[in-house]
Amino acid sequence: MRHLFIIGIGAGHPDYITIQAVKALNLVDIFFFMNKGDSKDELVRLRKDICERYIEHHPYRIVESVDPIRDESIPDYKTRVQQWHLERVQIYEDLIANELSEDATGAFLIWGDPSLYDSTLRIIDQIVARANVPFTYDVIPGITSPQALAARHRIPLHDIGESILITTGRHLASGKPIEPENILVMLDGHAAYKDIPDQQTQIYWGAYLGMENEILLSGTLEETAPKIEAARAEARERNGWIMDTYLLSKPAN
Amino acid sequence: MRHLFIIGIGAGHPDYITIQAVKALNLVDIFFFMNKGDSKDELVRLRKDICERYIEHHPYRIVESVDPIRDESIPDYKTRVQQWHLERVQIYEDLIANELSEDATGAFLIWGDPSLYDSTLRIIDQIVARANVPFTYDVIPGITSPQALAARHRIPLHDIGESILITTGRHLASGKPIEPENILVMLDGHAAYKDIPDQQTQIYWGAYLGMENEILLSGTLEETAPKIEAARAEARERNGWIMDTYLLSKPAN
Ligand SMILES: C[S@@+](CC[C@H](N)C(=O)[O-])C[C@H]1O[C@@H](n2cnc3c(N)ncnc32)[C@H](O)[C@@H]1O
Ligand SMILES: C[S@@+](CC[C@H](N)C(=O)[O-])C[C@H]1O[C@@H](n2cnc3c(N)ncnc32)[C@H](O)[C@@H]1O
Repeated sequence: MRHLFIIGIGAGHPDYITIQAVKALNLVDIFFFMNKGDSKDELVRLRKDICERYIEHHPYRIVESVDPIRDESIPDYKTRVQQWHLERVQIYEDLIANELSEDATGAFLIWGDPSLYDSTLRIIDQIVARANVPFTYDVIPGITSPQALAARHRIPLHDIGESILITTGRHLASGKPIEPENILVMLDGHAAYKDIPDQQTQIYWGAYLGMENEILLSGTLEETAPKIEAARAEARERNGWIMDTYLLSKPAN
Repeated sequence: MRHLFIIGIGAGHPDYITIQAVKALNLVDIFFFMNKGDSKDELVRLRKDICERYIEHHPYRIVESVDPIRDESIPDYKTRVQQWHLERVQIYEDLIANELSEDATGAFLIWGDPSLYDSTLRIIDQIVARANVPFTYDVIPGITSPQALAARHRIPLHDIGESILITTGRHLASGKPIEPENILVMLDGHAAYKDIPDQQTQIYWGAYLGMENEILLSGTLEETAPKIEAARAEARERNGWIMDTYLLSKPAN
């Protein structure tokens, strides 16, 4: 039977990978690399680097495919993403059926953890539901960017007994009031923290976490927001792309 | 200068540990094991097992201490925990000052990730603020129990673009309405999911995640809550202790 591993590789540093992931890497015959075809090709390089670094004796092959891009002419976000997923289901299913012989092991390497803002597991679920190609699969967790953020700032994500909301820039920018004391924001291309009314809110911001060009900034929004804006613009210009995430915490009272 | 590592070791399986953590383990002279003196001594055994498994040539010593217990006569939760922290600050500071020579490296091994429902970083912060004993320190992230839960159920923690609230049984039981579609509950000794009105809510429950006696259950609350209750009671009886966590997701509509 074909077997698949969905492996979280951590969100930045190659040493974020777990022993469990390393053991799985060493069982894989075919790696499926889904390329976005943009300037994030550095992320492809990082995946290759992980294979070279951690696979010891097992021969493997890398199959690169281009992930389709979203059709931005579809106005509704959820419909747009679902349509995009459907195309990807077909592509991934073909890859599994055509590239993986019947007793081979394949793997998708997922940035960070597969459970957090990544669609691979939803795609795999749909392929399983279609039942065109039989396979078994395992999921291996990886260090997420929120954890990298916390570790690099050396902070807990919350004060004693509090809750944390993990959300997107899109949600934060929607202006709906958000309850908990601690909000971890991902996928924010538009500096949604600028709309937070309380300027004494603490922000812990990190870009390229765990990577060579990592940037960390923290303090009150009042003091720190302009610094982040400047650092973000400058880094994006220099690197051609940016990945950043941040924690907002209510000021202690 | 004394150096400390606060190392996340993952929440259950010894292979959840990262390469970064393994590299740090191999630099440590003294491990501080804080024992709770209860039936969770298995967790002490697990920490020892990790040292034995992953430390190759570096000689090390384990210093075991008993963590003080909380004074349950203090009615307010936050005050009770803060008081308890203060005692621990003194104990940890003494350990660093007395057990660690001036150029030695010490480490605390944290279950899961140090940023999530663990007070070690807050204690370290307070020791730094008191400035009685100089040291540097680094934090190393680890796989959390929510990630172990997601990986073992092979699910994402949210549907496309949604948010996730990470919270405690205490909060859930407080009866305050909780907004987002996905709620990850930790530290719940009292089955707070039983108070969720919508019985079609999906629950993904896991106990002893990543461990030999792992239990996984999932389905609608209506169907699954009684099964969880039975499994929980039985497992607690058999093992003398239980660690469980669960995801609640609004039914798809
Ligand atoms: C599509 S999501 C993938 C998240 C990933 N699965 C994880 O576990 O972190 C991408 C978002 O994650 C955050 N992110 C991922 N890696 C990051 C890094 N190294 N530094 C800062 N942010 C990062 C950014 O907010 C980015 O917009
Ligand atoms: C004091 S908190 C520590 C959390 C830890 N720092 C982490 O990253 O997961 C303990 C709670 O974590 C959850 N937990 C930790 N390990 C677990 C495991 N292996 N299986 C199920 N739940 C676990 C339970 O909800 C437990 O009450």
